[in-house]
Amino acid sequence: MVDVTAKPITARTARAEAFVRMSAGALAALRSATAPKGDALATAQIAGIMAAKRTADLIPLAHPLPLSHADVRFEWTANGLRIEATATTSAQTGVEMEAMIAASVAALTIYDMAKALDKGIVIESVRLLEKTGGKSGTWKVPT
Amino acid sequence: MVDVTAKPITARTARAEAFVRMSAGALAALRSATAPKGDALATAQIAGIMAAKRTADLIPLAHPLPLSHADVRFEWTANGLRIEATATTSAQTGVEMEAMIAASVAALTIYDMAKALDKGIVIESVRLLEKTGGKSGTWKVPT
Amino acid sequence: MVDVTAKPITARTARAEAFVRMSAGALAALRSATAPKGDALATAQIAGIMAAKRTADLIPLAHPLPLSHADVRFEWTANGLRIEATATTSAQTGVEMEAMIAASVAALTIYDMAKALDKGIVIESVRLLEKTGGKSGTWKVPT
Amino acid sequence: MVDVTAKPITARTARAEAFVRMSAGALAALRSATAPKGDALATAQIAGIMAAKRTADLIPLAHPLPLSHADVRFEWTANGLRIEATATTSAQTGVEMEAMIAASVAALTIYDMAKALDKGIVIESVRLLEKTGGKSGTWKVPT
Amino acid sequence: MVDVTAKPITARTARAEAFVRMSAGALAALRSATAPKGDALATAQIAGIMAAKRTADLIPLAHPLPLSHADVRFEWTANGLRIEATATTSAQTGVEMEAMIAASVAALTIYDMAKALDKGIVIESVRLLEKTGGKSGTWKVPT
Amino acid sequence: MVDVTAKPITARTARAEAFVRMSAGALAALRSATAPKGDALATAQIAGIMAAKRTADLIPLAHPLPLSHADVRFEWTANGLRIEATATTSAQTGVEMEAMIAASVAALTIYDMAKALDKGIVIESVRLLEKTGGKSGTWKVPT
Repeated sequence: MVDVTAKPITARTARAEAFVRMSAGALAALRSATAPKGDALATAQIAGIMAAKRTADLIPLAHPLPLSHADVRFEWTANGLRIEATATTSAQTGVEMEAMIAASVAALTIYDMAKALDKGIVIESVRLLEKTGGKSGTWKVPT
Repeated sequence: MVDVTAKPITARTARAEAFVRMSAGALAALRSATAPKGDALATAQIAGIMAAKRTADLIPLAHPLPLSHADVRFEWTANGLRIEATATTSAQTGVEMEAMIAASVAALTIYDMAKALDKGIVIESVRLLEKTGGKSGTWKVPT
Repeated sequence: MVDVTAKPITARTARAEAFVRMSAGALAALRSATAPKGDALATAQIAGIMAAKRTADLIPLAHPLPLSHADVRFEWTANGLRIEATATTSAQTGVEMEAMIAASVAALTIYDMAKALDKGIVIESVRLLEKTGGKSGTWKVPT
Repeated sequence: MVDVTAKPITARTARAEAFVRMSAGALAALRSATAPKGDALATAQIAGIMAAKRTADLIPLAHPLPLSHADVRFEWTANGLRIEATATTSAQTGVEMEAMIAASVAALTIYDMAKALDKGIVIESVRLLEKTGGKSGTWKVPT
Repeated sequence: MVDVTAKPITARTARAEAFVRMSAGALAALRSATAPKGDALATAQIAGIMAAKRTADLIPLAHPLPLSHADVRFEWTANGLRIEATATTSAQTGVEMEAMIAASVAALTIYDMAKALDKGIVIESVRLLEKTGGKSGTWKVPT
Repeated sequence: MVDVTAKPITARTARAEAFVRMSAGALAALRSATAPKGDALATAQIAGIMAAKRTADLIPLAHPLPLSHADVRFEWTANGLRIEATATTSAQTGVEMEAMIAASVAALTIYDMAKALDKGIVIESVRLLEKTGGKSGTWKVPT
């Protein structure tokens, strides 16, 4: 664990995304909420937020952080679902992992809800989009 | 939660992968174990196995399963790290999610260990490779 | 912890309920999904199911059980929300606590979603409705 | 999750209660500590305090909070057990849910300890009694 | 994780102990239940049993097991407290770690309850006393 | 739970140790990383750090604390393995339990990794070495 004892507490945010690529059939079923396990987006949103709160339980060297906000949003595309997660805190270290975990677990929940329809669903491109705060300041994904 | 009460207990396995694409610098640091947080592969392996055991805590509609085996293996490539996770049980439902979670959390741990070197690391292609057992039998990713 | 080592594994079910009494204003906001925190029923359903899976973590002397099914359903009444939770397993001991926990945590989640509207919401009458299986067989709440 | 990033950290307390109605036989057994599973009150007190610390794990949109105090107290009445839980923190949001969870899980633990004697035990009237701190200030249950 | 997929399910038990050496003052306070935090033995017993149920969450390569029984008992000696923990299951692998964890966490809880009186308390001799079941059969600590 | 609401937030550290006594055969196997379950020290280090973060989940009356650092180090001796754990925070109460838990769970993980070689391994002398910060200031183990 990196020692953050001497670091000041500053406001920090992070934004991460995941893209879930799926067949037309799975996509149609999820969009119409006729997937076997019910409303996939509401379930994935809750799963992502709850997982963000457990980041320090999952990532061995992550520090426990008092999240002041976490959210997960969805956007349908022609061949899948884009997931964007955000996390915010005031702490000695950043919330990149919280946002990455929220996006990943939301995507894995979508997989779980749809795997009876399409086992070949792929979670593509889990990545950080932006972070702010801390000594290293703002970082944005190159475009 | 899908009701699996009437299903027989059968042997089940699953195999999943994740690919972590990273810069040459991050890759070199991780391979030589000079990354800021120590031995990344040992840490990621433990994180993936422990997360597999907590699948039902993370995925809202996943059933609790008595895993008889879980493992995570790594393979360096020219531009990143391939992670393969396996899970095994005898149960009324499959271990696809356990393998997917293990691969994802191992990949996220690699990201955490290397993000001070390269915030642009991308987790690509988290997907199921194969499953066996249960009513639907064996499934393999099309090649 | 009661020693259940010598007990046979049998099919077991339980059904429990909770009633959430609230003001007309809170009830209208929850029903129309205009409550401050979003869709309360979908969130409470997930929370109840996830809590049922963690019963042995919460109740000190409860045995860990492999749930084969858990669900939470809702019914609006004139002055509140009736919650009914079910749990199923094949195990050496019953799932009464799993059903009671699911109903309670679903009700507490409703409270959390609506407390900005009405802090005086009361969770009334958390109770077992029915259990089946095991040496003591079927029990139903007297009517 | 409500975004509390911009809120100041202030001292906050909450008090909640639950009432566990039970038969004369169950009540006598619990009071004399002859119930099948041992000392019910000590067990329920620990269960309630430990559950309060896990509020953010159970309630999907609850913020993680650094509790500075939590307690659970009991009072026998003619037909049951009154449970009162308190929680205290300095944080950006209140501890109502921590107190409600502590009272509920203590009550559910009493149910677990006594259900072999009386499956018809009812947890009545889980409710907030008082909260202090934060922008909305003090609230007390109307009498 | 050792692969236990091919092993038969058999009855298994384990017994472990810990000894908590403390000053005469701490011992007297704990025995008379006048320690600052209340009844130490009841609290330590619950903590040990609950930790046993979470063994697979704490020990990276431990398999999740359906405990059919776990208990923690205490015996005062002239210079401390002897703790004995037992665990039982029917599973493909043994419950040695469950018994060791229960004894350890019970001892650590005693330390927590008494550390305001005596920070020099030492947990001595956490060890397995006996195990039964499985391919290797019965093992007893040499005397 | 001791009420720490009125205490100031101050810097705090703690250092604890555990000694794992084992046979020459087990010691040689662990040192050469030929033990049945792989690299024991890397696994035990991760297990200890992760357990430190879950102290408040394991010890009933421990307060949740935002750890700014935790680590576990090892030193081979002629007849076993010395484990030293450290924990740091800025909080209203100390991190003695976090350091004690980290040392204990690291030692228990070593036991788990080596128990196929030597079931008679003993965890000796889990104890606090030093703490700093808070009203009671610095304490060191008498030498």
